[in-house]
Amino acid sequence: MKLQLSRRYRFSASHRLHSAKLGEEENRRVYGKCNNPYGHGHNYVVEVAVSGPVDQATGMIANLSDLDAFVESEVIEPFDHKYLNEEIAEFSKRVPTTENICIEIFNRLRRFRRATLERVRVEETGLNCFEYSGETAGATHE
Amino acid sequence: MKLQLSRRYRFSASHRLHSAKLGEEENRRVYGKCNNPYGHGHNYVVEVAVSGPVDQATGMIANLSDLDAFVESEVIEPFDHKYLNEEIAEFSKRVPTTENICIEIFNRLRRFRRATLERVRVEETGLNCFEYSGETAGATHE
Amino acid sequence: MKLQLSRRYRFSASHRLHSAKLGEEENRRVYGKCNNPYGHGHNYVVEVAVSGPVDQATGMIANLSDLDAFVESEVIEPFDHKYLNEEIAEFSKRVPTTENICIEIFNRLRRFRRATLERVRVEETGLNCFEYSGETAGATHE
Amino acid sequence: MKLQLSRRYRFSASHRLHSAKLGEEENRRVYGKCNNPYGHGHNYVVEVAVSGPVDQATGMIANLSDLDAFVESEVIEPFDHKYLNEEIAEFSKRVPTTENICIEIFNRLRRFRRATLERVRVEETGLNCFEYSGETAGATHE
Amino acid sequence: MKLQLSRRYRFSASHRLHSAKLGEEENRRVYGKCNNPYGHGHNYVVEVAVSGPVDQATGMIANLSDLDAFVESEVIEPFDHKYLNEEIAEFSKRVPTTENICIEIFNRLRRFRRATLERVRVEETGLNCFEYSGETAGATHE
Amino acid sequence: MKLQLSRRYRFSASHRLHSAKLGEEENRRVYGKCNNPYGHGHNYVVEVAVSGPVDQATGMIANLSDLDAFVESEVIEPFDHKYLNEEIAEFSKRVPTTENICIEIFNRLRRFRRATLERVRVEETGLNCFEYSGETAGATHE
Repeated sequence: MKLQLSRRYRFSASHRLHSAKLGEEENRRVYGKCNNPYGHGHNYVVEVAVSGPVDQATGMIANLSDLDAFVESEVIEPFDHKYLNEEIAEFSKRVPTTENICIEIFNRLRRFRRATLERVRVEETGLNCFEYSGETAGATHE
Repeated sequence: MKLQLSRRYRFSASHRLHSAKLGEEENRRVYGKCNNPYGHGHNYVVEVAVSGPVDQATGMIANLSDLDAFVESEVIEPFDHKYLNEEIAEFSKRVPTTENICIEIFNRLRRFRRATLERVRVEETGLNCFEYSGETAGATHE
Repeated sequence: MKLQLSRRYRFSASHRLHSAKLGEEENRRVYGKCNNPYGHGHNYVVEVAVSGPVDQATGMIANLSDLDAFVESEVIEPFDHKYLNEEIAEFSKRVPTTENICIEIFNRLRRFRRATLERVRVEETGLNCFEYSGETAGATHE
Repeated sequence: MKLQLSRRYRFSASHRLHSAKLGEEENRRVYGKCNNPYGHGHNYVVEVAVSGPVDQATGMIANLSDLDAFVESEVIEPFDHKYLNEEIAEFSKRVPTTENICIEIFNRLRRFRRATLERVRVEETGLNCFEYSGETAGATHE
Repeated sequence: MKLQLSRRYRFSASHRLHSAKLGEEENRRVYGKCNNPYGHGHNYVVEVAVSGPVDQATGMIANLSDLDAFVESEVIEPFDHKYLNEEIAEFSKRVPTTENICIEIFNRLRRFRRATLERVRVEETGLNCFEYSGETAGATHE
Repeated sequence: MKLQLSRRYRFSASHRLHSAKLGEEENRRVYGKCNNPYGHGHNYVVEVAVSGPVDQATGMIANLSDLDAFVESEVIEPFDHKYLNEEIAEFSKRVPTTENICIEIFNRLRRFRRATLERVRVEETGLNCFEYSGETAGATHE
């Protein structure tokens, strides 16, 4: 029997949306007030979904304390109370939109070995969220 | 890399559940207090999910302001603070159950061009919600 | 030892904001889209706060089942799935704004005998709520 | 047109995590404070998703009152305000982890005849939830 | 300038409502399914409100880490994942109703020295909560 | 009849906690990761409570659109998507702790003329909130 487990984590961080691939005016037009040079911030909610068979002896997919420790060291510790543009290497190269934050978190968590990473969801404000399930053939267009 | 974006919208409206295909007594039995001749109302929550590749320059699937403007003109403006049975043409022909409201919203939003409409979810009360992802071969039975 | 107990109830109803004391144009200006002639609706949340000493034998202020039965018969049964303007006598005389709904509910619940009614809070949409604690000398201006 | 309907139910219960297949020390290591001999408890939220075509006459997938009555008799009545280890037969054989609670609820609800059971989700604390969609070929490993 | 700070904590525990001051039948009548001999459980939410002047140098009422450490050692550590009737001495003498849990938590927290304890709120299920602000002259009736 | 109306607003901003009245080491000790030189951010929720008599003609305390316009121009427009330390003059002199943000918002909103400002509540993360009701004799200690 295969189940899916989802668990919610939180971090607070600041960022600025500004793309090196766009001009000043284009940046302002595309990102609006998110382009403010001083940056701004959010409380991010990250929902991590993993799946696996239920262990017959323990009745569990994975021990939540193992998942917690992994997410803490790979995501919460490096992202919490940080300015993402300056303090996460990936975001010196890519704009820290919620889309890119979601992909970066997925890539960091896919190394978890106790269960299969299914999906990462990131909420920026409670009104919108982004989900990423990894690259699938035919879906990329880069 | 293909992601999914979900965004929540709200509108408040009233409706009455009464089907022209059922007799008076049958209407009362099927819809209970929702058949009240004077109607009643709800705060509806609509969650719209779209997907697409992440643009390399902007780091975004679609600009939220484009999605917001489209949902506002196609759904929120016509539905908010309205009596659905009388003020939305579709519901002079079909009962405005949450199922039919969900399908109608999906049909109005599938014309969005900046990303692919994946799913529309409508919550009527916080205790129940309906999801529609479009017609799929073999699923219809009309 | 005196404690306060709050309990949440819900009802769904429709209403129209239109005051007999204002002209047509004034009604449209003051109430905006809430003046729509067909009405519209909401899921209302009612929080009832009562207080009293803790009974030494039962360890309770009041039995929740007594409070539930009283609120059900006085408020939920008459208000749920109704068009407030037509189906609640009070609102044939007063506009069913959330302010007046809050006062009407308070007046109906002050007859509860098992504990002291302290306050009634009514939420119309999750973004705003109204609280009434009864008339206090010097506060009225009618 | 095929839609999915999700509805939320709640029950409060206590349990103790202790596996007959593990030694005393191993039980303490695996389950931590959930192994406390006196047990502990939670408010569980159960979300039941069913799907089906929309009936042309009623505009509904299924009558919510039929689904409510079924879930009430199969799950809420037997589980609510109970000590799961002692009062649900299944949990004298299996550890009442949220994984196993989720599977047990799914198995009880698959007998619903008015729509197709798609998924059962169980939240134990608001921070984590489990989803089960039934056994699928190739997914089991028992 | 005096402000009030509220902070939310959570614990999961089980209890049984049964009063030594009432007979068997009276216990069943008063507490209903909460009188189940095996007990049952909840996720409790505790909101602690303290007040004080804002320190001119730090801009804070009190350091949240001090409040967290105090609440953790006085309440969360002893109550979390416990069977309250057996594992908290106070509840061998008093029925662990939410009223009495609220008073017991208030009494444990009033020893906090960095700010003034104003109020303790305990939610048992999201639908009801209890608030205690300490004994006030004329309010007790024991 | 005097009622109280509460309304919720949201803004997202970044800040850094660092007091000119404390040394480097003391700043790190007092503020922990909130002292990060690059700053970090939050989604703030502001609940504004005003009170007043219910107008006999309109059935309202105040028109929500008047309150919204005032809060928008005095608080949301200047605070949203900003770095508070650099872009709000008050916070070049005072540390932008949630306590000081709460007082600053209260002071900006007390000029509202359509109803009496009763209280401002600011939530920084959903786990903690601050409330300010204005200076009261005997409560200040500066």
